[in-house]
Amino acid sequence: MEVLQVLHMNKGDGETSYAKNSTVQSKIISITKPAMEEAIGILWGNVPHDHETIGIADLGCSSGPNSLAVISEIMDIIYAKCRNLGRPSPEFRVSLNDLPGNDFNSIFESLPDFFKKLEKDKGVGFGLCFVSCVAGSFYNRLFPSKSLHFVHSSSSLHWLSQVPPSLQSNTCKVLNKGKIYISKSSPECVLDAYSVQFQKDFSVFLKSRAQEMVPGGHMVLSFMGRRTTDPTTEESCHQLELLANALMSMVSEGLVEEEKVDSFNIPYYAPCPEELKLEIQKQGSFVVDRLEAFEIDWDGGFEDMNCPLGAASRGQRVAKTIRAVVESMVEYHFGKNIMDDLFRRYADLVEDHLYKKGTKYINLVLSIIRKS
Amino acid sequence: MEVLQVLHMNKGDGETSYAKNSTVQSKIISITKPAMEEAIGILWGNVPHDHETIGIADLGCSSGPNSLAVISEIMDIIYAKCRNLGRPSPEFRVSLNDLPGNDFNSIFESLPDFFKKLEKDKGVGFGLCFVSCVAGSFYNRLFPSKSLHFVHSSSSLHWLSQVPPSLQSNTCKVLNKGKIYISKSSPECVLDAYSVQFQKDFSVFLKSRAQEMVPGGHMVLSFMGRRTTDPTTEESCHQLELLANALMSMVSEGLVEEEKVDSFNIPYYAPCPEELKLEIQKQGSFVVDRLEAFEIDWDGGFEDMNCPLGAASRGQRVAKTIRAVVESMVEYHFGKNIMDDLFRRYADLVEDHLYKKGTKYINLVLSIIRKS
Repeated sequence: MEVLQVLHMNKGDGETSYAKNSTVQSKIISITKPAMEEAIGILWGNVPHDHETIGIADLGCSSGPNSLAVISEIMDIIYAKCRNLGRPSPEFRVSLNDLPGNDFNSIFESLPDFFKKLEKDKGVGFGLCFVSCVAGSFYNRLFPSKSLHFVHSSSSLHWLSQVPPSLQSNTCKVLNKGKIYISKSSPECVLDAYSVQFQKDFSVFLKSRAQEMVPGGHMVLSFMGRRTTDPTTEESCHQLELLANALMSMVSEGLVEEEKVDSFNIPYYAPCPEELKLEIQKQGSFVVDRLEAFEIDWDGGFEDMNCPLGAASRGQRVAKTIRAVVESMVEYHFGKNIMDDLFRRYADLVEDHLYKKGTKYINLVLSIIRKS
Repeated sequence: MEVLQVLHMNKGDGETSYAKNSTVQSKIISITKPAMEEAIGILWGNVPHDHETIGIADLGCSSGPNSLAVISEIMDIIYAKCRNLGRPSPEFRVSLNDLPGNDFNSIFESLPDFFKKLEKDKGVGFGLCFVSCVAGSFYNRLFPSKSLHFVHSSSSLHWLSQVPPSLQSNTCKVLNKGKIYISKSSPECVLDAYSVQFQKDFSVFLKSRAQEMVPGGHMVLSFMGRRTTDPTTEESCHQLELLANALMSMVSEGLVEEEKVDSFNIPYYAPCPEELKLEIQKQGSFVVDRLEAFEIDWDGGFEDMNCPLGAASRGQRVAKTIRAVVESMVEYHFGKNIMDDLFRRYADLVEDHLYKKGTKYINLVLSIIRKS
């Protein structure tokens, strides 16, 4: 089974669940808000005044509070625009997408309260809202042709469709166990393979969305990236290199087989702005409206003292956040038993690293428009 | 909590799951096939030849093999029609609907295999197919305006939106514990309350679908009903009266409190053709194309010796089928502990009843067209 097929955020609402450990992703959503406001402003200004429905999709919606928060935010913006323009709200057709392993049941179960709140906050003047869920990879067609006006995706496009095939077949081998992307024969080989896989995936992503979106439709994407073209920068994926270090410390104590670590690759890539612009230009269906980079603390900034992660150290908070995201994938490869130990070690390594270096995530926010 | 909110078919694929105990419903789907073929023939003949997409919804899709079997069947019919007419297949927009408690995750997990099979069976000439899931009561708007060409619902519309309010507030009380619909003060009071609730619900159902369907759109509905206008006929809901008998046998042994049984009402109603026609006429958006009644054995006829229910007696098979459907509701009211005992008693009562009387279900198949 391809490793991405087992990727899903930790389900339920327990201590290690994504629902309880998604403060970083929530922070990223709030950073994206100005770009969304601008995009919807442009979009809605261009839509004929008698237009009755608006198709919205959130790709990689996951489950937990963030899933419906994004949609809420988008609807709030459209609602405010309509009020300013003196137009009635449209009928909202909202599609939530993630991989088939996502916990869609929990989204569906939270919908009745979502609709109740909507009715209470917005009242009768608000347009009808229809929410549906669609399971599948966004590196493929997901929606009917020309059905979407606005597409959003947050914290998802840094996940590739697969580990680059050349690494799956072990033509490149891992050298420094701390650097999971560096190969024995040639470090560049691994880095290139990841970059090529990203280009392929991002191009398919753009092509698929181009078919699904109406001309003039707007897409706001935010995901992990790097500011420099140099892929070896710590901005790129150092949080995962520390996870590899934690695994290697378990190898050195005989708790994990070295071959297991050798054959473990995560389909993750943090692109730079130049790579994005090049692929958008090559694919040809979209123009760039806005492309920005934001620094995000590994623990999401942690301003909220009411946050459920409050009592934990910075290292522990980061470990919980990363665990909620990658555990399904790591567990599939290494088994359930080592998870607690692994993420304890990881928390210590992160704590130490943040104390010494204070590396931050770079979150890229990309806003593009479907050409007419 | 309203009892219908806890109604969902038994989840998973264990011994008491709906997935393993839905032969009767599968049989009903196959009986509905000629009506679907005719409906799609009329519908597709009327759609302009350059029409590119077709919106299909299955209401009360549940989970398990039946969920995607219906959609498969509908797509097969359209595909054959297109081939006969020398037209390309349209883009299929498929919506699967059930209440928020339904196991949508299992539908999503079975989709990749469904798409693989579709590609293998139909090949490249087949139009794209987009499947989405929508959670909510069909006694309400579920889909965008004028978005559906064909609507199907099987084994669902006999579930009311709620127990009639007059019974919830106990203005009518249960008299004969074997007849859960007969009231102490006046038997007619309870029967009328159920009939009035059905009329209200069915009218809202028609009104909602009328807004969602395109003019000329077709709807094929099949559900439990009765052939006579007399609501006391055994065809009506005798399978549930036997469940009440099983509960009363537990009351007599002190295993269940009598008050619990008194306050338990199932929001189920099996209408007669006259009631349906009257509501359709009153609502005014649809014309009846076809209305037929079919007899179905309580155990689905049981011709298939490979069926997983093979080794069981007729009473046991019926008990398993009914348990998979109503257990969530019964368990919510009476607690988990009595379930095995209750459905053992029920199986014996059904076995005995079928031996003596051989009552059958009456399944109504209604095909109606959205007026232009």
